[in-house]
Amino acid sequence: MTVMDAEPIFPHELRDAWPALSRDERVESFKLVPHATADDFFISLSAQEKLELLLAMGPGERRTWLRLLPPDDAVDLVQAADPEDRESLLSELDETTRREVHALLAYAEDEAGGLMNPRFARLRPEMTIDEAISYLRKQTREKVETVYYAYVLDAKQVLLGVVSLRQLFHAAPAKRVADIMERDVVSVTEETDQETVSRLFTEHGLIAIPVVDDERHMKGIVTLDDIVQVVQEEATEDIQKVGGMEALDAPYFEVGFLGMLKKRIGWLLILFVGEMLTTSAMGRFEHAIQKAAVLSLFVPLIISSGGNTGSQASTLIIRSLALGEVRLRDWWRVSRREVMAGISLGLALGAVGAGRILLWQSLFDSYGEHAARLALTVGLSVAGVVLFGAVTGSMLPFLLRRLGLDPASASAPFVATLVDLSGVIIYFSAATVLLTGTLL
Amino acid sequence: MTVMDAEPIFPHELRDAWPALSRDERVESFKLVPHATADDFFISLSAQEKLELLLAMGPGERRTWLRLLPPDDAVDLVQAADPEDRESLLSELDETTRREVHALLAYAEDEAGGLMNPRFARLRPEMTIDEAISYLRKQTREKVETVYYAYVLDAKQVLLGVVSLRQLFHAAPAKRVADIMERDVVSVTEETDQETVSRLFTEHGLIAIPVVDDERHMKGIVTLDDIVQVVQEEATEDIQKVGGMEALDAPYFEVGFLGMLKKRIGWLLILFVGEMLTTSAMGRFEHAIQKAAVLSLFVPLIISSGGNTGSQASTLIIRSLALGEVRLRDWWRVSRREVMAGISLGLALGAVGAGRILLWQSLFDSYGEHAARLALTVGLSVAGVVLFGAVTGSMLPFLLRRLGLDPASASAPFVATLVDLSGVIIYFSAATVLLTGTLL
Repeated sequence: MTVMDAEPIFPHELRDAWPALSRDERVESFKLVPHATADDFFISLSAQEKLELLLAMGPGERRTWLRLLPPDDAVDLVQAADPEDRESLLSELDETTRREVHALLAYAEDEAGGLMNPRFARLRPEMTIDEAISYLRKQTREKVETVYYAYVLDAKQVLLGVVSLRQLFHAAPAKRVADIMERDVVSVTEETDQETVSRLFTEHGLIAIPVVDDERHMKGIVTLDDIVQVVQEEATEDIQKVGGMEALDAPYFEVGFLGMLKKRIGWLLILFVGEMLTTSAMGRFEHAIQKAAVLSLFVPLIISSGGNTGSQASTLIIRSLALGEVRLRDWWRVSRREVMAGISLGLALGAVGAGRILLWQSLFDSYGEHAARLALTVGLSVAGVVLFGAVTGSMLPFLLRRLGLDPASASAPFVATLVDLSGVIIYFSAATVLLTGTLL
Repeated sequence: MTVMDAEPIFPHELRDAWPALSRDERVESFKLVPHATADDFFISLSAQEKLELLLAMGPGERRTWLRLLPPDDAVDLVQAADPEDRESLLSELDETTRREVHALLAYAEDEAGGLMNPRFARLRPEMTIDEAISYLRKQTREKVETVYYAYVLDAKQVLLGVVSLRQLFHAAPAKRVADIMERDVVSVTEETDQETVSRLFTEHGLIAIPVVDDERHMKGIVTLDDIVQVVQEEATEDIQKVGGMEALDAPYFEVGFLGMLKKRIGWLLILFVGEMLTTSAMGRFEHAIQKAAVLSLFVPLIISSGGNTGSQASTLIIRSLALGEVRLRDWWRVSRREVMAGISLGLALGAVGAGRILLWQSLFDSYGEHAARLALTVGLSVAGVVLFGAVTGSMLPFLLRRLGLDPASASAPFVATLVDLSGVIIYFSAATVLLTGTLL
């Protein structure tokens, strides 16, 4: 521990306090982190947080910290910056990194190319195990992302296989790399989207995946620690969409107030206008409500039961599609299952609804002589709406995926709004059929 | 590639087909995976999938595959098994692993103790770099989880520091482990919950975290690949809860039909009974609806606008709490922000709602002489309900967390149901005040 003028701040203390600090407080506190741990602290920050610190520093200091970053992190930082700051940030990188960063900037952020680090440990197939280990030892000095997996390339940089450092440690020293390398390498191309990449990591239990072009020339590696971030971000986006808003892309307190309103108002307006159709549909039945106001009392109950069933079904399928547990081609199997589920759930809830009316009738005489018919109408409507909700909710994510859109847009509120409209129509149609001549 | 009687099946083909296969097909196909890659394939399966295969094998074969598993995976497998199968599975492990598995079974599945592997690479502080590297080389043969981080322990197994293999490679051979080791080690205890563990991984960019007891005796390590699974599972649970159901704990097609109904019907019934309160509340205003049936047409519009705003707010806060971006103590800051957001969103939607009534009036004379008052009533009610939705939706997750419950239970449907009830009361109260003497 070095003695400093001000009290030093330990990284874990600063980490805890960080979210609540203003920008200026962050810059000031960062200066007080002891040098020995400041590097790790800096690297652990998000691209946006790094950028804030860098922009508040003097040019000399900024250069030092910027050059600490591997090329993939430097790319994230440049992408987070305003266009007018980008050139000046790029100009402070060293020549090699700048070239690498320029190349990486061409890839979309959510593809393997945008996640990969072009610096990886490499070996030649003809090396002996001992040569390979000492060659890897040398490469640790060149800031490769990991030395724990080494990629075996031919002279044209074509990927031939992979060996883990562990395998090298384990092998007889006289053998050659080609003898022990794994030839059936799990790899991705630069355009593979990040959801697929993260699925490959979990399916194969890997800590790094190589990125190759169409001729299997090695371009870089994606590592597991990048993927944890991807998995968190994708889940956050999905959860926010399921909740009925645009993905926020940044922590709650870091999004400006107006920016947050913008992410929320869009869907609210669409849903509001959609729900106006429900008002119009009910308007068609205004005469029925005038005759029997009691009918209107059950509207919230009936439409919400369909909406809730629909939210459950859509959320379930959205997540299953995202995890690859259910594929597009499974839609038919899912639909059969959801029809059965919708019928079962609908009959259960319908029975409870009808039972409630009959019970109130026998206790308080709430609904007069036609209570039994009213109970039948409400019960059947609930059953129908719940079935409709389960089918709509489960099929909508498939439809969106099929159209190339994000299934997560089939949010709970969106499905509920769709089901509300049909719920009103189902209910009042049932009432017209079952109650004309009695209540109506 | 070995030549076999039947066509061999490549692991990646089997991986793709796996979700759609029946249990028997899985057992049959697994036998056709070439031996060289079957180990990796087996290890990559989930605990439940491994268990299915093992239970379908003969005793000899089962033992071979079971002994392939590191102790933490063996624990997951035993936990997935029915109680009556557990003892027979345990009896087929070798003595050492059985003891380790018994010790690990004592921990809760969602704590660091339940995730850790007791086999890790260890070093003594007084070793030279060269001694350390060759000692690690020896340890690769003992099935330690990773050799890429080595933990430096004293004679009493107290954790003194950590060195990465990379640092060892980088260091001058004459130095000692104690000279280069990192002493400020990020560690957790056996009881640390898995959400905290996964947050530490992302904050510090680690690939392994040591687990220690209160006297810093080293117990095991948790590795990043376990955490990816944890992060996925936690996100899945949260998404399913946000969608208004109990977490499913297994892929869609692997949960039996009745099991799935059970996970869904509970919340649906609670919400249905809750929504009955809305029916009762509307019942209080039945005379108003009899006088002016037009009032009932706007009920779905008004209550759904509050429900949608509430879902957005609760989902946003649930995810922010889960990621640690917002803490319990931030509730006051959040509430002020959500009041402002609720007022802004409410005024915007209220204006659209009132505008729609005035427009229809001028185009179709839909609402008669009191259209302006009706527009005011609907507009103000929407504004009030939206504000109520934003505040309820954002505060409910804090309340649940404060009570020690899961914030994700403040699901979109749950918040919507709460807001429906208050929405009906707000709307009809406003109507009573503003319309008595005109429409009412």
